[in-house]
This record gives sequence, C-alpha cells and structure tokens, in this order.
Amino acid sequence: MSAKEALPAVLEKIDSELDASLDRLFAFLRIPSISTDPAFSEPCRKAAEHLASDLATIGFETAVRPTPGHPVVVAKSAAGAGPRVLFYGHYDVQPVDPLDLWDTPPFEPRIATLADGRKVIVARGACDDKGQVMTFVEACRAWKAVTGSLPAQVTMMIEGEEETGSTHLFDFVKNNADEFRLDLALVCDTGMWNPTTPAVTTSLRGLVYEEVRLRCADRDLHSGLFGGAAQNPIRVLSKVLAAIHDDNGRVTIPGFYDGVHELPPDIKADLEGLRLTAEDFLGPVGLKVPAGEKDRLLIEQISTRPTCDVNGIVGGYTGAGAKTVIAGEARAKVSFRLVGDQDPVRVRDAFRAFVRARVPADCQVEFESHAGSPAIQLPYDSPILAQARKALADEWGTKAVTIGSGGSIPIVGDFKRELGMDSLLVGFGLDDDRVHSPNEKYDLASFHRGTRSWARILAELAG
Amino acid sequence: MSAKEALPAVLEKIDSELDASLDRLFAFLRIPSISTDPAFSEPCRKAAEHLASDLATIGFETAVRPTPGHPVVVAKSAAGAGPRVLFYGHYDVQPVDPLDLWDTPPFEPRIATLADGRKVIVARGACDDKGQVMTFVEACRAWKAVTGSLPAQVTMMIEGEEETGSTHLFDFVKNNADEFRLDLALVCDTGMWNPTTPAVTTSLRGLVYEEVRLRCADRDLHSGLFGGAAQNPIRVLSKVLAAIHDDNGRVTIPGFYDGVHELPPDIKADLEGLRLTAEDFLGPVGLKVPAGEKDRLLIEQISTRPTCDVNGIVGGYTGAGAKTVIAGEARAKVSFRLVGDQDPVRVRDAFRAFVRARVPADCQVEFESHAGSPAIQLPYDSPILAQARKALADEWGTKAVTIGSGGSIPIVGDFKRELGMDSLLVGFGLDDDRVHSPNEKYDLASFHRGTRSWARILAELAG
Repeated sequence: MSAKEALPAVLEKIDSELDASLDRLFAFLRIPSISTDPAFSEPCRKAAEHLASDLATIGFETAVRPTPGHPVVVAKSAAGAGPRVLFYGHYDVQPVDPLDLWDTPPFEPRIATLADGRKVIVARGACDDKGQVMTFVEACRAWKAVTGSLPAQVTMMIEGEEETGSTHLFDFVKNNADEFRLDLALVCDTGMWNPTTPAVTTSLRGLVYEEVRLRCADRDLHSGLFGGAAQNPIRVLSKVLAAIHDDNGRVTIPGFYDGVHELPPDIKADLEGLRLTAEDFLGPVGLKVPAGEKDRLLIEQISTRPTCDVNGIVGGYTGAGAKTVIAGEARAKVSFRLVGDQDPVRVRDAFRAFVRARVPADCQVEFESHAGSPAIQLPYDSPILAQARKALADEWGTKAVTIGSGGSIPIVGDFKRELGMDSLLVGFGLDDDRVHSPNEKYDLASFHRGTRSWARILAELAG
Repeated sequence: MSAKEALPAVLEKIDSELDASLDRLFAFLRIPSISTDPAFSEPCRKAAEHLASDLATIGFETAVRPTPGHPVVVAKSAAGAGPRVLFYGHYDVQPVDPLDLWDTPPFEPRIATLADGRKVIVARGACDDKGQVMTFVEACRAWKAVTGSLPAQVTMMIEGEEETGSTHLFDFVKNNADEFRLDLALVCDTGMWNPTTPAVTTSLRGLVYEEVRLRCADRDLHSGLFGGAAQNPIRVLSKVLAAIHDDNGRVTIPGFYDGVHELPPDIKADLEGLRLTAEDFLGPVGLKVPAGEKDRLLIEQISTRPTCDVNGIVGGYTGAGAKTVIAGEARAKVSFRLVGDQDPVRVRDAFRAFVRARVPADCQVEFESHAGSPAIQLPYDSPILAQARKALADEWGTKAVTIGSGGSIPIVGDFKRELGMDSLLVGFGLDDDRVHSPNEKYDLASFHRGTRSWARILAELAG
C-alpha cells in the first residue's frame, strides 16, 4: 500500500488519538526548560531526556548527545523507503518574566477558550516550540501505528539552545556533518498567515545580538557633588542608541544595508496582495502606527527588511523612589534582524565601530556577542515547496501562501551552508500566540490540524 | 564666665571624650535607616528613637514627632542666653546597593587607615549625615558637661527623609512655623574644600527629580515577529534622553536657564583662584574630562551651574544572555540641579513638555515627581558668615573659604521662604568620602575637629 493510500487511516488515527497526544504535550510543557538562565540547566536536561524516551516508544533510535551547553536530542527511524529528511525543532523555551502577568503558572499547561470560541493550549512553550515539535512527533506516531513504518527516513535533531542563539549547535552540526547531510530539512518553528490560511515560510531573517557595557567612573557618584562634571554612562548610552535610527526609521550604521536586495516585482505584488494593515497586525497588542522604515509596506518591515531593536537596558538606580546617583556603568542589549546577503560579522563589526566612535574619552566600552547568523531563502521554484503547498491546501481547504518570517532560526542557515540542504519551514503558530510573552498559547486547531498537515506532507514527500 | 572664656575647657573635654563620642556614633551607624526603601521603615523609626534618647541624656527635651512618612526628631535645650538657633540634619541614609562592592558590611562601622595615613570611619552614613550630625551633638554635650548649659538656645530638627527629597518635612515646617521660626538655621550636611581647608557653603543647588514611564505595546513582544513595526519604548526613551544635552553639554529644554544668573566678577575670580583641576577632582573616581558645559570652569559646572542627569534607566530584558523581546515599557529617573532663581515647578513642567513633544502616537507617558526645591544663597555680607569663618580659621589654622555646593538640601530653601531664616552651612565631608557609594567613610579628623569647630562656632555666635 502506498503512502497516499494509507493516509486516510493515518489521519483518522490522529483524530482518535487527540486526547492522548495532548496528554503527552502537557507532560513536555510541564518541564521548565528555560535555556537562557543557568539556574534552569537541570530542567533543560530533563526535557531532553523526556523527549528522547517518548521518541523511543515510536521506534526511534534515540540519544541525548552532549554539547558544551544544553544537549541535543537525536532520533533516527529505521532505514527504509522514501526521502531522507532531517526534522529540526527545539525543546528550550524563553524566560517567563514578568511572572506576575501570567494568569496561571507558565509551566502548568491548561486548555482555555478564547472570546471568539477558539480553544487554546496555554503554557510557556505551548507554541514555541514544544507544541510545534509535537505536531511532527504525533504525525510520526500515527504513521507508525497505522503502517508499522514511516513514509520517509526521518532523523530528528531537537536542540536546547535555540532561544540563546543555538550557540553550540553550529559546531555540533559541523562536527557531525556526514550524519546530518540528508535530502531535506523540515522545520516546525514558524506560523500560519492567519487561523485559516496555512503558510510555507520561504525566507527567514538572520540575527546579530550584541550586549554593550559602558563604564565611566570607577564607582557610583553622588549626582549633587559630581553632576555637571562626571560623564554619565546612561547619557552616553542614550546618545548612542538614539543615533542608530534616523527620523525615517532607517538604520544609520554605515554599511548596514549592504547585501539587502529589493524584492522581485511579482513577490512584492504578492505581499501587497495580502493587505496586511496596522490595525490587524498591531491593533491586538495595543499599537496603531508602524514604527519601521517609512517608505516600506508594513509586511516588508516585519519580514523582508532588516531591523534593529534595543531588547533591554539598565543602569543606575531603578528601585522605588529617588536616589541621586550617577552610575558607574550602564548596559544595553541590541539586536539586528538580517535579510538577503547581509553578513552577520560585518554587521556586528559595523555596529561596534559605530558605538566606539560615540564613546567619549572617559568611558570604556565592552561588547559581548550573543548571536550571529545570516538570513536564508528557499528558492521559489523548488519542487519541495510545491509538494508542501499541496499537502497544506488539502488539509486546510485554502491555498497555502508563501511568506517571509521576521524571526530567526539561526541553524537553518547552517543547514544550507554546512550541509548543502534546503529547509522546508512549515509551522502553525498564529500572531496572537504571545510567543516570548506572558500567557503564551497555541491553538488547539494548530496542534491537531498541524499534526494532520505533517502526516500529509510526509505522504507527499514519499511521492 | 563668658562663652569664650569657657571654650578652652570645652575643647579639652571634646579631646578627652573622643573614644566615647565614637562609641556613640557607631551605635547610631549600626541602625540601617534607609529611607528610600519601604522595607526599612522600622529601622528608620529605631534610628529616630535612638537619637532622641541620646539627646535626652544631654538635657534636651526631646520628641519623635510623626509625619505621614518617617518621623522627625525634635530636641530643645533649656531656655537661656544666646541666639536662638535651629540645627538641622538627617538620620536617614542612602541605599547600600551594590552590596558586593562593600569591603565590609555597611552597617558594621569600623576605623580604617588609608594609604596616606588618614584614619577614617567606614559605614553607610558615616559622613552623610550621621557623622556630621554627631559633630554638633558632641559639641553640645561637651558644652553641657563643662558649663552646665549651652551658649545658644538650640532647637534640633533631625529628619528621616532627606534622601527621598524631604517629602513630608515641608508640611511639618509649615504647620509648626511658629515653633521653628528662630534667629538662624545651622546645617551640617556639606563639606570642606579639602582635608586642611574648612569651608562655609554659601549656595546650594536646588533639585527637581522626575520619574518617566513610557508605555508602547500592552505586552512584551517577540522582536523577530514585531521588530521593525512595533514602537520600542527603549528606543523612544533613548531619543528623549539623548536630546536633553547638546554637543556642548548645555541643556536644550526651552526656558531651562531662566533665572540662572552670571556670577559677580569677584566671586568668579575667587572660584578661579581655587584652581580646581579635573585631575584633582575627577581623577580619584577614574575620570579625566569634565562632561558639563564646555564654556564653564569645572568648579562652576559642579557648584554654580544647573545640570541634568539620568539617575537610572530600565527596560526590557536585563538578565543573563539574550532575549529577543521588544519591551512594553521603559522607565528613567531624571534629575535637575538648580541654581539662582530657577523655579522648580517651571523646570519640571518644561521637562514634561519636552518629553511629551517627543513621544510618538503609539506611546503613553506618565510622570512621577520625587522632589522639587529651589536653590538657596547666603548673602556674602552676612555677619553670621564672618563669625563662622573666624571660628573655623581658629580651629583649622587656615582661612575658611566660601563655596557653592552642587548637592541639594531641599529644606534649607523652606527655612528661608517659610521661616524667613538664613542658614549657615558648615560641614566636614571630603570629596573622597564615597557619599552614596559603597565604602562610604568620614575622616576621623573631620569628626573630631568638626566637633571642636561647632564648639567654637557656638562660642562665636554667643558673642
């Protein structure tokens, strides 16, 4: 029986197994695998081991493989027919602060019902990326249960450092290149266009993430005694950060736009056709006015144009009341989203030079790099893309759109560069998922029909 | 016997009592009376009660009088001869963070010896203001012990909210104006010119302290999904703060310099004569280049010119590692030092208008006022000033200089405005006292000869 003949029974199995699938997802979500905070390294390990054990029950040969940071779960299906695919996802999650804005504890998953009737899974990681990973895992489980095998030869690589820039995964991939150089990578860490329109993400922005630390006086000073004479690092840092954007929202760092290409006219027309409005995109988070480059469409600002954001800043006295202090130091975290052929190393160096040029004699500046990866692009004429779009259209009853994603998945660049593999990015996140924010959720429909979508994509790829 | 005849015995008493005086100071320093942090309100009360008990042992009629905040210690000597003076100081201290930069616990006072041989008292409040307050208390104690009375009619008002802008003392003074409207205020919360040159502080900068809170999106956002489109409050705040100073260090807020007068030529010549160098003033804290108005002397920048400093800033993710977030809000604490006739209310309103004009449509801004007080100036021809300079010269063997202080003592403005009293500001702090910083200290010589200085000043004032 061909994969396409077996598909209806597989989809039926997924439907009948939904409650058990949710139980398995909830067990995964209960583990607080926050990778950015060293205090949570034990839960990260626990999440990896939990996932490996679960995959073993589907017949995968599994291993929790060490890195200098959090481990990587590697799982391989039995050799057989069909294309050789590498499925990538991550078991780590973002920090949960500010904790007091969560309606219920972030690691106690629950089903809630939104005002519009949608049922959703609420927990840190519900969408990003545990829920998304489990759509693929559950699709494999159903295939195995119904047919005794998978329609493709699947290797899974589920890492634990995506939220910290995949620091150690690059070496892991490079050092094991022969093992992971397969036909195609599948990645489930992206979103749909809207709750009824599936999407394949054909481009991903790269990421450069820098921490800047400015030191002036060698101690905190009394602003009454020293105010007016002592260099203030918060003032210096503000000047630097304020200079990054001009009044049109364009980044002023010399050379920043090198390697940024204009879109082909037909792609730009497609983007315009999606008619993304500020009301629809920004309204739900309490905003109205796009803050990016004034001469670009909103959808370009968030997907095909490079950006810079200050992700955090701190200096001086920030407690209750007043303290008349001039701080000795101030820090900021600054990140850049890259597109096209922007070189992360050149962007990083240009940023550092830009900062250094604005630091007065009495300040020292130090930089720490938290991430650096280029953008990636799946060719528009790839047959893989056509197969995926067909499977998604079959499941959702709507043409699947191709979109660019504003977020980064750093390792996807290396799949292309180090392993020569394209990546097919299909995911079921939605704009209102509160990813990285309190009360993160994942639609129950995303989870259920996402699982069915992967079952269909595997059948299509099997030919 | 006149006060001047009794003085030598009083000075001898101070010398022989030094160890006991230090014990009493240390007991006071052990109470962590941090007024800015609500968690320390009980120690603040304890410090007030401790001081009142101590003053009762010298024969003062004492009371710990409530305010809506921390209480005020009021102590009155028996009626008698001599001028009626109001001595003002404060028993509250600054927060101690960052605690890990203290060599020893901040509330365990100790004597240390500096590399140059100076003995110093190390503790939070050693100088500001417990050590300074105790110089006057110990001078009174010696007078009482030797002569059975004081050479002046002394009322003490020692408050617990100086470090938070004396919030409730203004109403306290206003509501009890008849009680405190005396001949002259004495204040011990300022410094010497250097370790061998005593000083009378004839001007004090005023203070406006504002907290700015900017809100954009109603939640934290993923910078990958929203970066480029969502307004970032840290970026907006940086633009606002960066705009406050021009490239010459001048404040750009319209009307800010209204009421700032040029110095009389002779006063300016005196200031030049002090030959304050950046090396001497900034070198000890690791700086070299004055950061204030480029066309002003360093000594003007820190004493007779108005300034603006950002005292604290916070927004977004500030923990370890990277978090790709666009914060929903950012906050800054901004303070202004005022001189001459600058009006604190007008400065505050001008600042708020300046900020509002720079906040884009998608942000809301809120302000909170932590302090607002005008500058004050003792007339250069005051006879009180001449008496104090003579007493100080007698004690230190050096001409006492008149200086302007960069710091604020908000209530001193009200002594003039509400009670019609001038204030004589004499103190023994030094530039290297690390006031408001870790390892705050007070020279043993400042404490000892400061006590002797007050004994002499009281004798001079008695005529």
